[in-house]
Amino acid sequence: MTRYAQLAGELRRRIDGGIYRGGDRLPSIRALCREFAVSISTAQTAYARLEDAGLVEARPKSGFFVRSQPAPTDLPAVTRPAQRPLDVSRWDQVLELVERHPPDDEVLLLGRGIPDLACPTLKPLQRLLAERYRHASGQDLNYDALAGSLALRQQVVRLMAGAGSLLHPDDVLITSGCQEALSIAIRTLTEPGDVVAVDSPSFYGTMQILQANGLKALEIPTDPCTGISLEALELALEQWPIRAIQLTPTCNNPLGYTMPEERKRALLALAQRFDVAIIEDDIYGDLAFDTPRPRTIKAFDDDGRVLLCSGFSKTLMPGLRVGWIAPGRYRDRVQHMKYVSTGASATLPQLAIADFIAKGCYERHLRAVVTQYRRQRDLMISWVRRYFPADTGISYPQGGFLLWLELPGGIDSMRLNERLVPARLRIAPGSLFSASGKYRDCLRLNYASALTPTIEAALRRVGEEVTRLYVGVGDRALA
Amino acid sequence: MTRYAQLAGELRRRIDGGIYRGGDRLPSIRALCREFAVSISTAQTAYARLEDAGLVEARPKSGFFVRSQPAPTDLPAVTRPAQRPLDVSRWDQVLELVERHPPDDEVLLLGRGIPDLACPTLKPLQRLLAERYRHASGQDLNYDALAGSLALRQQVVRLMAGAGSLLHPDDVLITSGCQEALSIAIRTLTEPGDVVAVDSPSFYGTMQILQANGLKALEIPTDPCTGISLEALELALEQWPIRAIQLTPTCNNPLGYTMPEERKRALLALAQRFDVAIIEDDIYGDLAFDTPRPRTIKAFDDDGRVLLCSGFSKTLMPGLRVGWIAPGRYRDRVQHMKYVSTGASATLPQLAIADFIAKGCYERHLRAVVTQYRRQRDLMISWVRRYFPADTGISYPQGGFLLWLELPGGIDSMRLNERLVPARLRIAPGSLFSASGKYRDCLRLNYASALTPTIEAALRRVGEEVTRLYVGVGDRALA
Ligand SMILES: Cc1ncc(COP(=O)(O)O)c(C=O)c1O
Ligand SMILES: Cc1ncc(COP(=O)(O)O)c(C=O)c1O
Repeated sequence: MTRYAQLAGELRRRIDGGIYRGGDRLPSIRALCREFAVSISTAQTAYARLEDAGLVEARPKSGFFVRSQPAPTDLPAVTRPAQRPLDVSRWDQVLELVERHPPDDEVLLLGRGIPDLACPTLKPLQRLLAERYRHASGQDLNYDALAGSLALRQQVVRLMAGAGSLLHPDDVLITSGCQEALSIAIRTLTEPGDVVAVDSPSFYGTMQILQANGLKALEIPTDPCTGISLEALELALEQWPIRAIQLTPTCNNPLGYTMPEERKRALLALAQRFDVAIIEDDIYGDLAFDTPRPRTIKAFDDDGRVLLCSGFSKTLMPGLRVGWIAPGRYRDRVQHMKYVSTGASATLPQLAIADFIAKGCYERHLRAVVTQYRRQRDLMISWVRRYFPADTGISYPQGGFLLWLELPGGIDSMRLNERLVPARLRIAPGSLFSASGKYRDCLRLNYASALTPTIEAALRRVGEEVTRLYVGVGDRALA
Repeated sequence: MTRYAQLAGELRRRIDGGIYRGGDRLPSIRALCREFAVSISTAQTAYARLEDAGLVEARPKSGFFVRSQPAPTDLPAVTRPAQRPLDVSRWDQVLELVERHPPDDEVLLLGRGIPDLACPTLKPLQRLLAERYRHASGQDLNYDALAGSLALRQQVVRLMAGAGSLLHPDDVLITSGCQEALSIAIRTLTEPGDVVAVDSPSFYGTMQILQANGLKALEIPTDPCTGISLEALELALEQWPIRAIQLTPTCNNPLGYTMPEERKRALLALAQRFDVAIIEDDIYGDLAFDTPRPRTIKAFDDDGRVLLCSGFSKTLMPGLRVGWIAPGRYRDRVQHMKYVSTGASATLPQLAIADFIAKGCYERHLRAVVTQYRRQRDLMISWVRRYFPADTGISYPQGGFLLWLELPGGIDSMRLNERLVPARLRIAPGSLFSASGKYRDCLRLNYASALTPTIEAALRRVGEEVTRLYVGVGDRALA
């Protein structure tokens, strides 16, 4: 990491940590130079980056100030899922969402978890892949090492250094997508009947893993800005025999928040106190809107209890199916589980991604998409404000490309989806994200690909249907 | 299938089924034309194919005769594993075998399950892959359908028609290697503590799946020519609560036999009688030395109880990680298990393989490698006869590229491997293939890639070490 990025990171952490609060005046350039022993230009660049990130503003003649967070007033409520372990179901709904629609059936899927695949900064990756496949010989066509290609594991280590973790390539195993990483992590830690605590709402893929393995999900209330409630989690840990905590603390799917760093540390301390493992899903972490990207919980993990799961499906292309896991002290069992699950992962996509990162193309690509996603977040939020009932709850994502809406009047998003069939539109219903039948009045949208007039029209149409349902609710209430 | 291939297949089945026996005179060309209503040239071509396959010989002026099978006299013994369900272990040894050695450590691995990757008929596949990756857009970079690409599922259906199965593309799900197919099949059918009956010796990958899922393996005695003992299996089914039968009945790994068709049918009848599912591993089936290739058990499955698992790791390249499963009546649960295991499989390798098959390149490639493997089987057997003690048991593979040896005097193949360290050679020890510690005196060799003087020298060296150990055994016996 460059000097100015380190400095910006440190300032960022102080802001996150509440050392400097909204409206506070920040140290002068000179003070920074003294405190950190850096040059004036380094200090200036660091502030410029924080300005870009929307965290700091320069006021003429008075210096730099912490920006008051935009603090949207229309955030969804803190979630209140059922406080007991539950079996997960809803596979039919998940299948309906994740199943590819036949190409002739031109449905516009507004809620899937897919990045922008038309981004020109992805093109070099396709070239690298093509070259690798054309020129591969012998070893590259063979079974890879069980842990995956060293070249890619080294690049993962480099990326994770930027997220605060000092890993060794032997700490990393490449998997067939992040889904395999999560599946292996959960199966390594649990036996049928065990309880796993999850943030709530929670990624449906993980919930289905719990279901398939006969596990129970204990959904913990979660704040749309700061993430899983540590107070509720502590109570749950006292009350239930929890085997693992599974969560997505950075650029959460579906809520978009990033847990503040002190809360990540506090969560880890809690896990240590109750001696449970943490399965940390970081698949959207590299898409954080702030630079440097937020640190993982794994960054603070000093006794190997965090199994960090991630991959390139959201930052590059899902169709490559390249994920990874850094399983800490569970490495040997995870490796065995990886062998029995799929053997080694495909060799050449790993090598091509390693090339892509090593050449700096990954960073360039991230810069491009993060800028795009951030802009499109704001645009899509403005559309929702325009086309949806005024009391719709809207998340305020800190990264990634997913927006979460809480519809007013308890409107059922499954019913909404049915109403959208004639318009050939589909949203992701909120109920997929809960084991306890919560979030029926919520839905997920995707703002990754170019927000064309077609998408605006689609969103207007969804808003109209919501409004109609809302009026219906009012009518029934009056009747 | 062409007319002559059908006819050759029918004759082949009569020979296999013992209707025509070694030395028997076969129907004349004219009789064939009458019986099957085919042309003279079709009948001639059918006999020519059976001649090529070594099953039939033409004797001048007297017509066609069934060849007496070479019936090697030095086959390994029928196996006698422990007759009770056992926990599987030996992960360390499996890891040592499957783990990729660092490139600088130039060990010659004589026992791994890897096809010849230098075969020129594979080159078009690399070109197709490169083109697919270079020109892919949108959908092809995205998550594939959960069941896999329709184009590949259609080609799998075509291939399996040649193995006697009439499948529909919806009956097939693409997986990340055959290992995932097996893993999913087993997890779909069982709960921890359940018993699975397996052929013995048995592929270590499957055994490790049993271990990881808390299942017990019941190893059934197996004949090196005709496969799993139906008599022993019947007894076992009466005695134990068996949830599934898992076996590799065609071009078995490691023994090389193909179960005769009547035995496959009888096995299915047994499974029906006891109402258990069959997990049929056919990964080497397309590499059978006879044409048309033997039919699967699945071909006779009329109530959907066979889960057929296969893939392209042995016929094309393991590093692509493309496998598939035809799960019969278990399709829905298998699909869920596939979703939670890895989500959809990688898109583009599937499309490239589908192109490769559709263009006829797969058949061309199979013809080339099958001819090569058959020739090399005979050459490697001749080397073993030359360099190993005379009473070494040698399998007689009907397809694939793996040879199984039974060493005389109870020589321990793990010890042999240790002795081979200075020579930078490694064989696959037999004990990996058993849960009950059997086959310590056996080993597996690979004859896929060109049998160069280097490999001959390596084999001679292995033979010398075996001979030395054998003499040692004799000495100890005398002492
Ligand atoms: C939070 C989260 N984790 C994991 C995954 C699965 O990732 P992959 O497609 O790499 O298996 C997803 C994809 O939707 C996700 O949103
Ligand atoms: C009998 C058998 N089944 C399955 C497999 C695994 O196949 P894949 O590499 O496609 O996962 C192997 C590979 O060694 C095998 O020998």
